[in-house]
Amino acid sequence: MSAPLHKARPAGQGRALPDTQQGMRRRNLSRVLHTVRDDGPLSRAAVASRIGLTRAAVSTLVDELIRTGLLEELGPERPGRVGRPGSALAVSGRGPAGIGAEVGVDHLAVCAVDLRGEVRARAVRHVPNRDRSAEPVLGELTELIHRVTAEAEGEGLWPAGLAVAVPGLVARDARTVVRAPNLGWLDTDLGALLPEKLPLTVANEANFGALAELWLGEDTPRDFLHVSAEIGIGAAVVVDGRVLHGNRGFAGELGHVPVWPDGPSCACGGRGCLEQYAGEEAVLRAAGLEPGEDRVGLLAGRAEQGDAAVRRALHDAGTALGIALTGAVNLLDPENVVLGGALSGLSPWLLPSLRSELARRTAGPSCPVSVSALGPQGPLLGAAHSVVRAVLDDPAAVAERG
Amino acid sequence: MSAPLHKARPAGQGRALPDTQQGMRRRNLSRVLHTVRDDGPLSRAAVASRIGLTRAAVSTLVDELIRTGLLEELGPERPGRVGRPGSALAVSGRGPAGIGAEVGVDHLAVCAVDLRGEVRARAVRHVPNRDRSAEPVLGELTELIHRVTAEAEGEGLWPAGLAVAVPGLVARDARTVVRAPNLGWLDTDLGALLPEKLPLTVANEANFGALAELWLGEDTPRDFLHVSAEIGIGAAVVVDGRVLHGNRGFAGELGHVPVWPDGPSCACGGRGCLEQYAGEEAVLRAAGLEPGEDRVGLLAGRAEQGDAAVRRALHDAGTALGIALTGAVNLLDPENVVLGGALSGLSPWLLPSLRSELARRTAGPSCPVSVSALGPQGPLLGAAHSVVRAVLDDPAAVAERG
Repeated sequence: MSAPLHKARPAGQGRALPDTQQGMRRRNLSRVLHTVRDDGPLSRAAVASRIGLTRAAVSTLVDELIRTGLLEELGPERPGRVGRPGSALAVSGRGPAGIGAEVGVDHLAVCAVDLRGEVRARAVRHVPNRDRSAEPVLGELTELIHRVTAEAEGEGLWPAGLAVAVPGLVARDARTVVRAPNLGWLDTDLGALLPEKLPLTVANEANFGALAELWLGEDTPRDFLHVSAEIGIGAAVVVDGRVLHGNRGFAGELGHVPVWPDGPSCACGGRGCLEQYAGEEAVLRAAGLEPGEDRVGLLAGRAEQGDAAVRRALHDAGTALGIALTGAVNLLDPENVVLGGALSGLSPWLLPSLRSELARRTAGPSCPVSVSALGPQGPLLGAAHSVVRAVLDDPAAVAERG
Repeated sequence: MSAPLHKARPAGQGRALPDTQQGMRRRNLSRVLHTVRDDGPLSRAAVASRIGLTRAAVSTLVDELIRTGLLEELGPERPGRVGRPGSALAVSGRGPAGIGAEVGVDHLAVCAVDLRGEVRARAVRHVPNRDRSAEPVLGELTELIHRVTAEAEGEGLWPAGLAVAVPGLVARDARTVVRAPNLGWLDTDLGALLPEKLPLTVANEANFGALAELWLGEDTPRDFLHVSAEIGIGAAVVVDGRVLHGNRGFAGELGHVPVWPDGPSCACGGRGCLEQYAGEEAVLRAAGLEPGEDRVGLLAGRAEQGDAAVRRALHDAGTALGIALTGAVNLLDPENVVLGGALSGLSPWLLPSLRSELARRTAGPSCPVSVSALGPQGPLLGAAHSVVRAVLDDPAAVAERG
């Protein structure tokens, strides 16, 4: 459980660790568990035919998954079928749970998700975290984590790991926030400030948002670009179902792609970055509004009422997004672009100019842009599900810890 | 051999084909072959200790690789060592060879590379291919392929596959050139016009150039951006040792990243694309020169002589490259950027402004930019080596074909 799938680096070509019976068993345990989760309830025989192993081999694997509490038997299948009745298998609604947490600029949130993917406990606290140091913020987050964990334990679950979404750059160690400008955090090791007992993964909120889209969205392709915002503009590049992290873990900084290279200076050191045109504060400024707490709500409300300055500011932000995305689409050729997080609430006013800019800069059919149905819930759900996925992808590791 | 490693899509999470003894054997055959190739000559015992399998298991695998002609025994190791003398193993200098081919705007080239990575035969023909239809061009290329293949066969090699580098966009089928503006080809199936007997892979020249850099370059990281040029500007995004292809196979179109969004119109439908500032023809135009055959040679020669207009044009091209690369680096966070292909010959005059632009737009340490030592040879070598790699990565497939 120390390396959830989405951050594991695949082994090098040719020279990876040797294939062993042990490794094969671990991978086949995962296949059985995924199959029952995706298509269950299923009998042992149905699992065997779906994954192409013998019934005997599957039975051994199933027995191990039942023993470690990951699968459960629902009792004999209904009579009338041919042959001896098999017992239907389902993923356990008890056992390991993923604890997801989110540090937002204006809120803290925690939830627990079981192996079936259901949210079993949740806590949210609205609190201004801007320029507040990490100790009190994570102290408060720890309280919420304890509360959610206790509630989950009351339902027979146990926390298999903790994943925390933050609005900032995270090092490849998946613990250290290198820079979170809107919180004012620099090189902060969250591991030292969070409950020690739980395996920890920290990632940028855009990355967890993208994973939520991949795992929970309708028909999400395996190659897409997920754009989100919380004051800054972040993106996650998903390639073949994996988030691209980059050398230092900093990939996806769409907000600092130059749009008008001679434009206003940006805190990143550049000029004319996307964030200077489409970041929440830039849009508020362009619309002549003061940044407050519910920035997206304010902009959406005014735009809804027909406020011309707000609509113009959002139109211009959409144009800038379209230019930056043209570059990203040319580099990455994703199957689509998804607007998530706070941007999803502003999409009615951003999308027309965004789409037309993207279309007029592309000779062929331009890349489709859609809006996340998960909206601002994405990062928190993605965090919790990343822990669940790690269990599904290597159930033997959980058994070893149990 | 039908799917070389660099284009294979990894299987989906969790639900891949079952792990079988047969699959394990295939992967372990590859590990043995890679180990001997990288570190050999080696005894069976040394291979066993390096890859963590038993000596008996390795001996069975080695015997199979010798039987299919991929490994050879060099005879007993020098005496004086402890224990029974083992026979040293080396990768065969006979057996399968990779045939690489390149269709350039001004030339055709073909080479044969053996399993050891040595070029064993080569043919080049300078010929203006601009706006020439695919049939005569590939007819001429086929002649060169036959000549190189015959030469390789004379040395005991046999062609395991053909890989062709083209200056254009290639569909994910790795056969069809969707668009090669400088050749004037549209939706052209190269498979129908090339020797039928050889398994075929067609890819963009920038992608093969990047693979050459990855496999043959000194200390090339596994995450980098390879930028090359042949009239157009192409790039390849390498993530964890794999070239990113994108949904349609079109990833890496750095040449069409907007630099000055209100700049001149581009054939792609956009405005102010990088190619309008840093493509060979744009640079020639800016320097007041006519495009001829050896465009890079002309520019380099004039710059060398101190021609102010050429130097200014190259300086400005470097600035535009720096702006486009700032966006790419923010999105991808590569370990470095490599200038390859034709750009490598112009690097003395491009690099200063390119580097300073990248540095001034980045708050932290900026991404290092280096120049490929392979230069214009990269794409051809990368093509031939991609066939060799496919053999090394799945030697059992060769045995089945043999």
